[in-house]
Amino acid sequence: MKRLTRRSALIALLTDFGSKDSFVGTMKAVILGINPRATIVDLTHEIPPQDVDSAAYVLWSSYNFFPKETIFVAVVDPGVGTKRKILCVEGTKHIFLAPDNGLLKYLASDGELKRIWEVKNKKYFLSEVSSTFQGRDILAPVAAHLSSGLKPENLGRRVRSVSSEKEFIYLNGRSSGKHLGKVIYVDHFGNLITNFRLASDTTQRWKSVRVRIRDRAIEGLSRSYSDGSPGGPSALVNSSGLLEIGLRNGNAAKFLKASAGEKVTIEFPHEGKR
Amino acid sequence: MKRLTRRSALIALLTDFGSKDSFVGTMKAVILGINPRATIVDLTHEIPPQDVDSAAYVLWSSYNFFPKETIFVAVVDPGVGTKRKILCVEGTKHIFLAPDNGLLKYLASDGELKRIWEVKNKKYFLSEVSSTFQGRDILAPVAAHLSSGLKPENLGRRVRSVSSEKEFIYLNGRSSGKHLGKVIYVDHFGNLITNFRLASDTTQRWKSVRVRIRDRAIEGLSRSYSDGSPGGPSALVNSSGLLEIGLRNGNAAKFLKASAGEKVTIEFPHEGKR
Amino acid sequence: MKRLTRRSALIALLTDFGSKDSFVGTMKAVILGINPRATIVDLTHEIPPQDVDSAAYVLWSSYNFFPKETIFVAVVDPGVGTKRKILCVEGTKHIFLAPDNGLLKYLASDGELKRIWEVKNKKYFLSEVSSTFQGRDILAPVAAHLSSGLKPENLGRRVRSVSSEKEFIYLNGRSSGKHLGKVIYVDHFGNLITNFRLASDTTQRWKSVRVRIRDRAIEGLSRSYSDGSPGGPSALVNSSGLLEIGLRNGNAAKFLKASAGEKVTIEFPHEGKR
Repeated sequence: MKRLTRRSALIALLTDFGSKDSFVGTMKAVILGINPRATIVDLTHEIPPQDVDSAAYVLWSSYNFFPKETIFVAVVDPGVGTKRKILCVEGTKHIFLAPDNGLLKYLASDGELKRIWEVKNKKYFLSEVSSTFQGRDILAPVAAHLSSGLKPENLGRRVRSVSSEKEFIYLNGRSSGKHLGKVIYVDHFGNLITNFRLASDTTQRWKSVRVRIRDRAIEGLSRSYSDGSPGGPSALVNSSGLLEIGLRNGNAAKFLKASAGEKVTIEFPHEGKR
Repeated sequence: MKRLTRRSALIALLTDFGSKDSFVGTMKAVILGINPRATIVDLTHEIPPQDVDSAAYVLWSSYNFFPKETIFVAVVDPGVGTKRKILCVEGTKHIFLAPDNGLLKYLASDGELKRIWEVKNKKYFLSEVSSTFQGRDILAPVAAHLSSGLKPENLGRRVRSVSSEKEFIYLNGRSSGKHLGKVIYVDHFGNLITNFRLASDTTQRWKSVRVRIRDRAIEGLSRSYSDGSPGGPSALVNSSGLLEIGLRNGNAAKFLKASAGEKVTIEFPHEGKR
Repeated sequence: MKRLTRRSALIALLTDFGSKDSFVGTMKAVILGINPRATIVDLTHEIPPQDVDSAAYVLWSSYNFFPKETIFVAVVDPGVGTKRKILCVEGTKHIFLAPDNGLLKYLASDGELKRIWEVKNKKYFLSEVSSTFQGRDILAPVAAHLSSGLKPENLGRRVRSVSSEKEFIYLNGRSSGKHLGKVIYVDHFGNLITNFRLASDTTQRWKSVRVRIRDRAIEGLSRSYSDGSPGGPSALVNSSGLLEIGLRNGNAAKFLKASAGEKVTIEFPHEGKR
């Protein structure tokens, strides 16, 4: 990775801090105090409190659209103030700062965690570090210094690559039979996002796929939300390549009384059968 | 309209995406990847899902305060992925990108839609366009290219001006008699905004106006929220020139059990009568 | 205070406007129309409607982390459109614009209000000033002009320092006996922030402190949220130096059915006793 350029450094923030307090504004204040030229983008601050899994999904679903050398600061951190590590990770094109608690699991599953350091060098922290707001006292200033050209090597010692479970179930045009997956995220519209990842060569088989969730069987995949038949749920491949269950002009999560963790099956008929 | 200058290009975003997912952050990422110097302002992302009418009001009530050459990107789009057009509109001072679904109706009513193009040129889209997230794949990159100097002419063919119904009921110092209107928007404080648009020369007649909503009659217009009599609703001309019904230190929508669509009448006594 | 530099002027916004309307976006539009180089940071817009006390806390808890010469614009203003003053205050390192309604009380308690002016000079307002949206028509344009180099002296006449009650109860390593305080703010996580301000030299006595709220007695202070014993509330000194009551992996406000104003006592044993 080339040295970070000083102009237009981009820092993206992802937290469960909500928007009613001054937490997020204070992190931005610290960043802009160190690097006034940084551009800060909010990914979201509405991760449900301490819901590391949702944060992991939100980060994974968006990081690849950010310009290269973007620095992501992810703070969903039930273990703040304890001995858990804070990591700085170099990916293919980006840098990630996050506590070592699973927040990066989907990125790991994609092989995105190229080099990992533990963040320990107090030289780049605020002078007083509280045990309850390390987003402000450690992660924000470290991100600002990285955006000003600091190399991750200066933050602490190298850490072995974390073990990465396969978080997704990969299906392609040659897949067949029944597969068991689950809902991993529910979005603002009530769409249920699953861990089935469908390659683009599955397109011609979308009509013959069957998806089951709760007591419902959905026949075939739709192309868009408004293609779905009204009144019942429909399934489609979403803009991240994952199988998603929605409800035309409605909220699928409420309609199906389903949330993260709900079981989903997908069935591909054997080719030649139809 | 002069060529857009490259410095300090302003892009304003208006969506129903909410703030819990990465949708908005991803649109910003795409914009800043194409034009790192763009300044992005959030108008709101809390339009109720698929509520095109509310979005139309929010856009109309604010656009005129933005610097000239601001590019507005409005994505409240129940028809995403279907054949509905995406429009690029040149107004008196601004540019608007939006699906062709009524989002621009109040602007049309004001004669703001000077020249209209259909957005079709894939050269300015992301290389892969999903059928569910065209805010990211079409509108964001097109806005970024416009902010970098692209002319709307390059986006697609010219479209005839859309037919514009009169969305507002215009009243002025010489108005008399009874007029029937409705609530078109409810704001964060529970204030009920109506489609009565009162010219500034109505001021001297405010004391003699009568407003009716639900089973209430409000005598006279107040100058500010805190001028209203405590305990009951009051009416005033809001900062956009529209008649608005509020409740001092309270929430008028809850108090009156009223929402968008609720009928409102305003009565001007004949002059000389009093 | 040195003249404000034109580069990277920072303006921080704090309102109760919520995020569903165009209020905040319109204020930003006005600011950027006057000073396109301003950097704007949202402190929060989710102050409960007209809750001046919460706004005062949020501002106080964060201002000191902002770069010097940051201009704070605080608009929680039940008296908008009435005769209440709008103030421009020069602090040790920052400038504050706010209605004169108690929003600055914690800053006053800290001796931060060095010089105060009344904002009256219409030259720096929008040409039409509404009586319902002075954030847009007065505070935003004044902030933008200040960020472009305008001196507060030009805004209006000097006002005497406001009388400042002691808002905090200061405790230190030599404190003893029982003290009565209260909850002054509840954050997004349900943590209850009190007006007890504990100096850093209290650290060695944290084990012997007793905190009471509702029918609960909490023995000793924790170092971090996850240090607290599971199942019951715990108390700690938060990142602003205030005593705070939280619940490990839970919401203390809901658990204790407590909100702002709730009585809290803290008891320091006499030294030597244990």
